[in-house]
Amino acid sequence: MKLYNGTSPNGMRVMVFLAEKNLDIPTTQIDVMGGDTKTAAFLARNSLGEVPVLELDDGQIITESLAICRYFEVLHPAPSLMGRSAAEQANIEMWTRRMEQQLFSTVGSIGLHEMPFFAQKLEQSPDYAASLRRALPKKLEWLDKEISDGRPFIAGEEFSIADITGMAALMVCGFLNIALPNNVAHVKKWADSVMQRPSMPQMPG
Amino acid sequence: MKLYNGTSPNGMRVMVFLAEKNLDIPTTQIDVMGGDTKTAAFLARNSLGEVPVLELDDGQIITESLAICRYFEVLHPAPSLMGRSAAEQANIEMWTRRMEQQLFSTVGSIGLHEMPFFAQKLEQSPDYAASLRRALPKKLEWLDKEISDGRPFIAGEEFSIADITGMAALMVCGFLNIALPNNVAHVKKWADSVMQRPSMPQMPG
Repeated sequence: MKLYNGTSPNGMRVMVFLAEKNLDIPTTQIDVMGGDTKTAAFLARNSLGEVPVLELDDGQIITESLAICRYFEVLHPAPSLMGRSAAEQANIEMWTRRMEQQLFSTVGSIGLHEMPFFAQKLEQSPDYAASLRRALPKKLEWLDKEISDGRPFIAGEEFSIADITGMAALMVCGFLNIALPNNVAHVKKWADSVMQRPSMPQMPG
Repeated sequence: MKLYNGTSPNGMRVMVFLAEKNLDIPTTQIDVMGGDTKTAAFLARNSLGEVPVLELDDGQIITESLAICRYFEVLHPAPSLMGRSAAEQANIEMWTRRMEQQLFSTVGSIGLHEMPFFAQKLEQSPDYAASLRRALPKKLEWLDKEISDGRPFIAGEEFSIADITGMAALMVCGFLNIALPNNVAHVKKWADSVMQRPSMPQMPG
């Protein structure tokens, strides 16, 4: 088994997930900004030219960070990061998707539409990026209200992939020099607490 | 248990999923276009004001269509729509996310940024919608090449939630009067075949 991974928000999600599971997977580092995801050899593994990519011993390719996490969750269910019972799994998947839809995809799209590096990947719209920057504070305020019940983690009493996804979004904020608004104290408390975990990389900026 | 659902692409995903599982869940129809997702009672169940919402007997709320599907998949694993082994589950999750990222979110964003109904939900960018309309054919061509190996379904030999998500994207295309390009014969063959399933709603347009 080999993991092809690089410095990217999705790459970070898988790295933190594996660290929380205490799994050491042979990894080939891919220089994303240097263009290594655009080589013929890489595109043969993932036609979308994105990390992370997991190659199993039988040659099966798994792309998409959450799909890679799912693979390891099923094979190594403890500690649980995606839930045990049906209700737990659904709750964590709901919160993971909320973190993705409300935060991660918002800040990710800001990066995609602002950073010169992505000009070859898509038709950039600076106006759209600006509208997302205006929309982001309300989304953070929504999350702040949702977690104002004092629970320690996004999906409840246990750390989960929802927290990892939320932290990936905040790391993109740091990378894009987007400061958290002043009125999201619960979000800040949660982020400060989660950042203490040994699995977490250093926050950029 | 009660499902709150309405006429929406995500609502369709859950309805088809339940039909494929042969599950009959008590459902309250929500008039999305009529504003029923903006009432205080509805917002108390889902602060994001979106269908579908599943309310369990103990009061737990599950939103996000894939999280609702996950709940039923864990409780009713046959027929499998999200995979059995770790490798199968990961493969189907990869393809579901690819269908979401490449197609469903692209056409969904076109709708969000073009349709007057959504003007109150977000700051619309017609230019961004136009750029997505220009980008969509390449994404469909990418899918066409990926499934040109002749496999019957998006994730391989078995129908799965990846097919349901892909079909939801095509239904949004129909709703937005976006015709499939001429050079995606494999996509058309797949769509024609999947549309024959009794679980599928009538294609709009």
